[in-house]
Amino acid sequence: MERADGTQEFDVVVIGAGPAGEVAAGRLGQAGLDVAIVEEHLVGGECSYYGCMPSKALLRPDEALAEARRIPGAQEAASGALDVEAVLRRRDEVIHSLDDSAQLPWLEERNVTLVRGRGRIDGERRVLVGDESLTARRAVIVAVGTAAALPPIPGLAEARAWTNREATTAGAPPRRLIVLGGGVVGVELAQAWSSLGSSVTLVELADRLLVREEPFAGEQVASALRRRGVDVRMRTAAVAVTRKDDEVVVQLEGGQILVADELLVAVGRRAVTDDLGLETVGIEAGAALTVDDGMKVVGSDWLFAVGDVNGRSLLTHMGKYQAWIAAENILGREQRAAVEAQATLSPRVVFTDPQVAAVGHTLGSAEEAGLRVSAVDYGTNWVAGASFYGRSAEGTARIVVDLDREVVVGATFTGPDVAEFLQAATIAIVGKVPLARLRHAVPAFPTRSEIWLRLLETYETERGADALDRAAAAA
Amino acid sequence: MERADGTQEFDVVVIGAGPAGEVAAGRLGQAGLDVAIVEEHLVGGECSYYGCMPSKALLRPDEALAEARRIPGAQEAASGALDVEAVLRRRDEVIHSLDDSAQLPWLEERNVTLVRGRGRIDGERRVLVGDESLTARRAVIVAVGTAAALPPIPGLAEARAWTNREATTAGAPPRRLIVLGGGVVGVELAQAWSSLGSSVTLVELADRLLVREEPFAGEQVASALRRRGVDVRMRTAAVAVTRKDDEVVVQLEGGQILVADELLVAVGRRAVTDDLGLETVGIEAGAALTVDDGMKVVGSDWLFAVGDVNGRSLLTHMGKYQAWIAAENILGREQRAAVEAQATLSPRVVFTDPQVAAVGHTLGSAEEAGLRVSAVDYGTNWVAGASFYGRSAEGTARIVVDLDREVVVGATFTGPDVAEFLQAATIAIVGKVPLARLRHAVPAFPTRSEIWLRLLETYETERGADALDRAAAAA
Repeated sequence: MERADGTQEFDVVVIGAGPAGEVAAGRLGQAGLDVAIVEEHLVGGECSYYGCMPSKALLRPDEALAEARRIPGAQEAASGALDVEAVLRRRDEVIHSLDDSAQLPWLEERNVTLVRGRGRIDGERRVLVGDESLTARRAVIVAVGTAAALPPIPGLAEARAWTNREATTAGAPPRRLIVLGGGVVGVELAQAWSSLGSSVTLVELADRLLVREEPFAGEQVASALRRRGVDVRMRTAAVAVTRKDDEVVVQLEGGQILVADELLVAVGRRAVTDDLGLETVGIEAGAALTVDDGMKVVGSDWLFAVGDVNGRSLLTHMGKYQAWIAAENILGREQRAAVEAQATLSPRVVFTDPQVAAVGHTLGSAEEAGLRVSAVDYGTNWVAGASFYGRSAEGTARIVVDLDREVVVGATFTGPDVAEFLQAATIAIVGKVPLARLRHAVPAFPTRSEIWLRLLETYETERGADALDRAAAAA
Repeated sequence: MERADGTQEFDVVVIGAGPAGEVAAGRLGQAGLDVAIVEEHLVGGECSYYGCMPSKALLRPDEALAEARRIPGAQEAASGALDVEAVLRRRDEVIHSLDDSAQLPWLEERNVTLVRGRGRIDGERRVLVGDESLTARRAVIVAVGTAAALPPIPGLAEARAWTNREATTAGAPPRRLIVLGGGVVGVELAQAWSSLGSSVTLVELADRLLVREEPFAGEQVASALRRRGVDVRMRTAAVAVTRKDDEVVVQLEGGQILVADELLVAVGRRAVTDDLGLETVGIEAGAALTVDDGMKVVGSDWLFAVGDVNGRSLLTHMGKYQAWIAAENILGREQRAAVEAQATLSPRVVFTDPQVAAVGHTLGSAEEAGLRVSAVDYGTNWVAGASFYGRSAEGTARIVVDLDREVVVGATFTGPDVAEFLQAATIAIVGKVPLARLRHAVPAFPTRSEIWLRLLETYETERGADALDRAAAAA
């Protein structure tokens, strides 16, 4: 609706049409609210075009082939080479060749008005897009996400380094690739391009990969990357970068030199709040927006922030979850994020081979949080069902048990194709299902989910034969 | 311990060393009891040698290869033929070439005495094995399982028909195979041998396959089998069977004739209680043993029955679960089977492609049980994560919601590689996690477990936008 002062008026204005922004706008539009969504680049966001989706498209063909090759009878039929061109074509299909028109009907069906351009807050309940002014009767939702952070390494800014954007959309494998950073983006893309033919060096400052996960996860992924031929270097700092024509030269602390065709920087993300007009409503620009468990920006009664930009959890599914929570609250149905599995405790999957799937606490984070816990470990491949899966691969299943409440507060699974193991753990944790009750949730034989049985049996053996019995009495 | 009367005395005597018997004996032995286990054939039982394990060994190579072939980039590398010899060799490894010596250390470590021979009950707390008499101070556990049932079709008994035993251990694919019965055994082995080169005809009396599952499950499996070239015939009765040298001839109602090299009879199982000495303790022989939820035979204070033989659920994992319950009760720690997911509601997986994984009620069984329920459906492949999996395959995810208690009481998943989806549903059902709480168990993107999000969203859409909110208020 155009107002007398020439501004457009909506119930809610959402800035950013990534997964979180889309879900918030879509839910509110579906509920009958008058909603605008502002997007300066692609509707669908970083995840759809430059993140989760293309990286999985690059990883999955090799993963499926590797699995077939681990199985006698199938391996003989799967001895050909991965078709790199076909993998990249399929990746292009998955990212719709960076065209977002397929995303638009979803918004249209929900009566959401798409405004193309960069959105900036312009005082209370107002958003500027170019010279267009949008007013929000109920709320403004910021969902602008994050961008790759560039560390202050001399020469890096001029080195035409890849971020996740170039590394997920490249038209061909670089002959030589250096990856700075051994977090999720670094390890997934190191594996992906290595499997597609690149010679990859992975440089990590810390003493292990995936530093926030259980130590065994990073260790197993490092071993697997090395077996693939990736040169994995821990405790290694890059101190200078130089681009010379087609080559990029990375100087390491100690003087060693690495040379490659491309350099991927994957050392973290920064909230893109520096040019968002936050100063017009008294919020310092440049930082993540602090929100309460209802996703409202602290100190405001009309400003919400969902997805990466609030710094809680840089994960698409958590952004969508937060968007649902924000939408519910705006619609007057109070919802708050469940503390057991959000922020650093969010469900998370690394799609390497072995995969790493985790939710809730690691043993370390639980102890830091002051919980009285015990970790129970079992080999992912020690169950009968694993006879038919990725036999040569390593894998560990761990649950972290809160000994005072006798519930699971964390779980980590590593191994081939364990991503779908995670939801059971998430439900157990969020549902606070007592261990004694969990023992009655019988995993089907011979599925690999029998690790649940083994973990509970191991817990029982380690804590005394009647541990679950005592737990039942306490429940 | 040998008694004065020449009998051996134990705390507990277990008859039958299949999965259920082994678990019961092992747990009691580990707890310090003096335990004997009696086995006339192979320690490890039907499942390890003639059931779940070899059937999965026969199915998995083709499944893994089929999956690789559905993925652009991998399919080009996986164009060779399945190596049937290698599949059969691996199957032989999995069943240890019908040698059970690898199973014995597990019993030895738990101080369980293995008595080879056929066990028969010989009055209260006594078991005869040949001319050896065993006395049980505390309990006798019957775990003798089931055998394939042969229907009274004229000529069948003389036709050298295959049961699951021959069909899982055959040294080569028959050129032509007729399968009688479209239950789990029938459909799995029809697919297995078809994938290994046999020309297969599947004959089912009912109007669909997998009659106890959701109708869409059997329909999808039938379509998939037909696409593989299996001749699937519903509403078809075999009225006579003749074996002529190397050929078996099956006459169908209506006069049509089927001819094959082998005939697999997979129309059900019968408890092998006819020669168990039950009459010496006043129980009628030949039927399944009726037990209470603590696995004690009704009317007895010393006789337990676990596994297939009690007729509750013909599934290895449920046998092992029942064994745990029986052992706990014998050890004085009361345990009873959880009603939400046992007997006909047990977790169950059919390892065809598409797989069928189900737990708890179907819509039909819930309605029959008098529950006020609603079924919520979503396409297994309609989530982003499915872009990277078996794209061409059909699949349906269904949860059955108890509308009065707002909890899930049943779930069925069909599609490629959905077996590991099941444990999440089992935990939700057994843990009685309210829907409103389940909404906070966020599935990781882009795993295929996002069907949980979609199912809950669909429920919300179908029941009204604030359905989960109302559920939360009620919880």
